[in-house]
Amino acid sequence: MENLSLKLLDQAVDELNRLPGIGRKTALRLALFLLSQPEETVEKFGTTLIDFRKNIRYCDCCHNISDTPLCPICASPKRERSMICVVSDVRDVMAIENTGMYNGLYHVLGGLINPMSGISPSRLHIANLISRTETERPLEIILALPATPEGDTTAFYISRQLKECPAKLTTIAKGIAIGDDLEYTDELTLGRSLSNRVEFHL
Amino acid sequence: MENLSLKLLDQAVDELNRLPGIGRKTALRLALFLLSQPEETVEKFGTTLIDFRKNIRYCDCCHNISDTPLCPICASPKRERSMICVVSDVRDVMAIENTGMYNGLYHVLGGLINPMSGISPSRLHIANLISRTETERPLEIILALPATPEGDTTAFYISRQLKECPAKLTTIAKGIAIGDDLEYTDELTLGRSLSNRVEFHL
Repeated sequence: MENLSLKLLDQAVDELNRLPGIGRKTALRLALFLLSQPEETVEKFGTTLIDFRKNIRYCDCCHNISDTPLCPICASPKRERSMICVVSDVRDVMAIENTGMYNGLYHVLGGLINPMSGISPSRLHIANLISRTETERPLEIILALPATPEGDTTAFYISRQLKECPAKLTTIAKGIAIGDDLEYTDELTLGRSLSNRVEFHL
Repeated sequence: MENLSLKLLDQAVDELNRLPGIGRKTALRLALFLLSQPEETVEKFGTTLIDFRKNIRYCDCCHNISDTPLCPICASPKRERSMICVVSDVRDVMAIENTGMYNGLYHVLGGLINPMSGISPSRLHIANLISRTETERPLEIILALPATPEGDTTAFYISRQLKECPAKLTTIAKGIAIGDDLEYTDELTLGRSLSNRVEFHL
């Protein structure tokens, strides 16, 4: 078996392999796909991604990604300014926006506290959140963090930091998903769902 | 719901969405991953892929991708020069090399005849294959093309072009995969496997 090692191909596969969820086999497939495209297409592909990373900006207020100093949500006169929904990630903002159920403001932490990965509270936008609550004086702060140990740690840390804040601190409900059978729900979720039961409304 | 349309992010997602098997949701995930990486990492990612496309070269003889004018297989003195294995794609060369069962040369067509997609025989390296057989005079030409209508069309076309060629023309066996149950094999494959039965050897 000949050594087929090809420097350029190997480098391209290595780079594509960095992407989350893209293994070496898929990376090879993607590299060969790029090879089949016109040179200008691949040039545009590469420069668009480089420019994206280089020129991306974040909202000065909520740290959501934004083309403008203030993101469209923070700048909108139609949004309820008395609520701040705290999320880990830009994707969470998109997910909540997609529900169409929330009309308040956001605060993007940029991650979750995770001592194992060296992510301390100071690396997240938590201090900004505290100062925001002091100036904006919201009535409610909703913690919409993932139901994971990191999410819980972060929620606990933030709740401690907000001890003096008069705003109501809430967290999104954890329970069985819509369409789920009880039988197939894990016991932790089902237990939480039971203890967090709410009054029944038709 | 605010219009969150962000030009740079949208452009990045559009580009990643071009990749085969990458839908918009995955493209968004990849774009946000790139955002979380240092600027230099993304710069390297983009330029490596651009350079890869720009500087890639193909073997003058078999059209496999190669860093050198003649690929390592064509250049190797250890390869059996009396056999040419005709494949559609660079990936097929890799797949066959990985079996460790073939020690001959290759010829990469660069695709399959597909009139629906406008791929005529003239867009493939078929003419080169014919002239190669005239100068190299191999003893056997193995068609290792996919078991699809396009593969069959291409095999048929090549066999016609090689009518005058004294080399033995063979095709890889089509049948049930190793480890497969007969019960779960589709009837076309099983039928082919039956009609192409070979003598049993222990």
